[in-house]
Amino acid sequence: MQLHTVSQLLSQEITLPEVEVKGWVRTFRANRFIALNDGSTLNNIQCVVDFENTDDAILKRINTGAALHIKGELVESQGKGQKVEIIVSSIEILGDSDAETFPIQPKKHSFEFLRENAHLRTRTNTFSAVMRLRSALSFAIHKYFNENGFYYMHAPIITGSDAEGAGEMFRVSNLDAKNPPLNEEGEVDFSKDFFGKETNLTVSGQLEAEAYAMSLSKVYTFGPTFRAENSNTSRHLAEFWMIEPEVAFMDLAGNMDLAEDFMKSVITYVLENNREDLEFLDKRLQDEEKTKPQAQRSDMTLIEKLKFVTENNFKRVSYTEAIDILRNSKPNKKKKFKYIINEWGADLQSEHERFLVEKHFKCPVILFDYPANIKAFYMRLNEDGKTVRAMDILFPGIGEIVGGSQREERLEVLKEKMKALDIDEKELWWYLDLRKYGTAVHSGFGLGFERLVMFATGMGNIRDVIPFPRTPQNADF
Amino acid sequence: MQLHTVSQLLSQEITLPEVEVKGWVRTFRANRFIALNDGSTLNNIQCVVDFENTDDAILKRINTGAALHIKGELVESQGKGQKVEIIVSSIEILGDSDAETFPIQPKKHSFEFLRENAHLRTRTNTFSAVMRLRSALSFAIHKYFNENGFYYMHAPIITGSDAEGAGEMFRVSNLDAKNPPLNEEGEVDFSKDFFGKETNLTVSGQLEAEAYAMSLSKVYTFGPTFRAENSNTSRHLAEFWMIEPEVAFMDLAGNMDLAEDFMKSVITYVLENNREDLEFLDKRLQDEEKTKPQAQRSDMTLIEKLKFVTENNFKRVSYTEAIDILRNSKPNKKKKFKYIINEWGADLQSEHERFLVEKHFKCPVILFDYPANIKAFYMRLNEDGKTVRAMDILFPGIGEIVGGSQREERLEVLKEKMKALDIDEKELWWYLDLRKYGTAVHSGFGLGFERLVMFATGMGNIRDVIPFPRTPQNADF
Repeated sequence: MQLHTVSQLLSQEITLPEVEVKGWVRTFRANRFIALNDGSTLNNIQCVVDFENTDDAILKRINTGAALHIKGELVESQGKGQKVEIIVSSIEILGDSDAETFPIQPKKHSFEFLRENAHLRTRTNTFSAVMRLRSALSFAIHKYFNENGFYYMHAPIITGSDAEGAGEMFRVSNLDAKNPPLNEEGEVDFSKDFFGKETNLTVSGQLEAEAYAMSLSKVYTFGPTFRAENSNTSRHLAEFWMIEPEVAFMDLAGNMDLAEDFMKSVITYVLENNREDLEFLDKRLQDEEKTKPQAQRSDMTLIEKLKFVTENNFKRVSYTEAIDILRNSKPNKKKKFKYIINEWGADLQSEHERFLVEKHFKCPVILFDYPANIKAFYMRLNEDGKTVRAMDILFPGIGEIVGGSQREERLEVLKEKMKALDIDEKELWWYLDLRKYGTAVHSGFGLGFERLVMFATGMGNIRDVIPFPRTPQNADF
Repeated sequence: MQLHTVSQLLSQEITLPEVEVKGWVRTFRANRFIALNDGSTLNNIQCVVDFENTDDAILKRINTGAALHIKGELVESQGKGQKVEIIVSSIEILGDSDAETFPIQPKKHSFEFLRENAHLRTRTNTFSAVMRLRSALSFAIHKYFNENGFYYMHAPIITGSDAEGAGEMFRVSNLDAKNPPLNEEGEVDFSKDFFGKETNLTVSGQLEAEAYAMSLSKVYTFGPTFRAENSNTSRHLAEFWMIEPEVAFMDLAGNMDLAEDFMKSVITYVLENNREDLEFLDKRLQDEEKTKPQAQRSDMTLIEKLKFVTENNFKRVSYTEAIDILRNSKPNKKKKFKYIINEWGADLQSEHERFLVEKHFKCPVILFDYPANIKAFYMRLNEDGKTVRAMDILFPGIGEIVGGSQREERLEVLKEKMKALDIDEKELWWYLDLRKYGTAVHSGFGLGFERLVMFATGMGNIRDVIPFPRTPQNADF
């Protein structure tokens, strides 16, 4: 007898006289029908118990959450809702589950409650589907880059530099927390710390990825990044994963081509490989939408949104054009936007980005050539002296999902930029070296992985798309 | 005209009248032959310059490290050492490189010097080969697990728990470093810290992976882990990457099967896909070995070591048997071991592990059923009450490369273990929940990724197999 996964059994075209499966009870009804799940698929295998010939002591232990080892015959199902089912010949209780205290009852739980039980929440349909999709998206990302000649590089997590300035950082230390050693000036003496200087958790691997791009040509990072920002919102995490490709000899136009192709490719992958999970989450989202006032509902279902990305060309629009469109738009004139767009130079908010995608262009949008002063120091200055070769990709429902740029490859221009922003050249001596020795046009972008998982699953809270979320006041598990 | 990578050009079977390539100069000799590399392959493309018809000002700028854009005709090479070469029709200098100051001169540099220039070291053959292999091994790992029904899970990096006890941890904080808030007892008040409690960088994602295995059945982590140990050796990093699969319903024997199949699969992948880089590193290692005294040289070349793993069955030996073998071995009797094995219960050192693999069994070895008191609290206690279902995989040249176990699935036994070791149940309430609700036999292992990269590249210092190593007193770049 061979141990099968639930997924293997459900895809059987023929009946099998002897099968064996292990999993957890989702429901047990009528003292007869066990819905068993092992995480290999969204769906449960129905196991039909001959209750008249089964020990009562066993039947009583078939509770939601219990782990079972079941043997039996795989047959065509007589009931509806499943093609096959197991006629049980033997049940072994591997692990009991107290029906009174098991937190994951067979009913609808609030996501907040499930966050408090993040160690058990993948025993629900929603979270197992989300985490299978998260895994599939990860694989699709590695597969895409591998097939396109990129090398995966692990950027450092602990960094001695705070030059990127992307946000507040977490300090990493093993000095005595209460009585740190002080130097002659009476300040904390980080020269006595583990790394001999003050260190933080990285906010981005981009600068290091640039070093690798300037020798291996095409590289990408996929690793954790951190922000010590006290933002208790449904869109912020203190710890999240980021993908950052970086390519030598590629300009901004090439960067847009790459980002569009990449996004379409990974979303196509899950449309092709995770259909059941997507259909379940699509349905879940539709049910959730129904509880909202009409005006707040999405025009598109989850799967429609994914196809909106894979089936449309991304419209490329300069920041300057976008400002014109927004300034003259109805919601701007009627003051329906929370932030009214008055002049060139304004930073766009999610409401503006979504208007461009959902109402104006009706396709994903790539904005480019942003004002230099709202973008990072390393972005390539245009000839106009006031815009940089930045680009943001805007998606429906979510606004910005990708941000990237061509990088400033000219040593003198980069130095001036750093000087103006008070970034110490000594701190980034190695980054400047890349412009001293064989500099070249190069570009890249960053994708917050959890933003992608939210988009692909339709989940509304970022805490629900990462296994164990880290947020202000919360580092449980 | 189409831009090609060096790798594409070198694999051309036909001549091409018009090609275009961008890359960095490795060498320029006789004012005529440029060796150009773009990281897409170990090998350079030879670009033949018609120096008599090329501006002298350009010729003088073709220095090692400069970035060039070259156009020309791809022809069969007249010289030896390459099949094809480019007859250059135009050269554009994209980025100069000062021949006087460029650190990576076309000569042999010490690895120590290259570590100080880690941002440029992938412009050498050795480090570009190592990092391509590192990338390929990463992909092979994801591919293996994806094809075998595993889900990738991202375990948290910042953790509020220090229960695993695998080593010293780094504190993560954004309290004021000099004057942290104190509580009524005069101790640092971590309740005022970002996460509302003391937090550290993770030493392992295993416990969280167990939670996911107990719902999704087959999962793995692949992420950074940390040790704040002041070990300035060639085998320790403060920040390194670890792979930790975890599987429900799998016992120790299944764990050994999985680990053996996995290791063979990823090494086979690079043998099949990275032959050029491996052959280069094989040669490098042989050259290095020649500088050592005969007695310290390895019996096997790099590629022989890899095939030693893929072509041999891993011998499974209990710890108890191994102790007997070691106790009666020649080096033990003749006191050639640094640590003499006298009795059962001794922790094995690398010298013992290597003896078993290289001299005694002459194949990779899996040791299992270790004394409980030298292994972690979560390992499954055997019926003898003194050994646990642990396993270590031993490889030639390196000793232990994988460590794993069947996990203690029995709530009461686990609680006793924790009590004996003074591990607070409240700290691991969620881990205990996994044993309360549908517990089952489950197992997993950990593989230090850099140990694997060292093994597969033949590099002797762990700092040379990770892009930007973090070690005591060093968090540069």
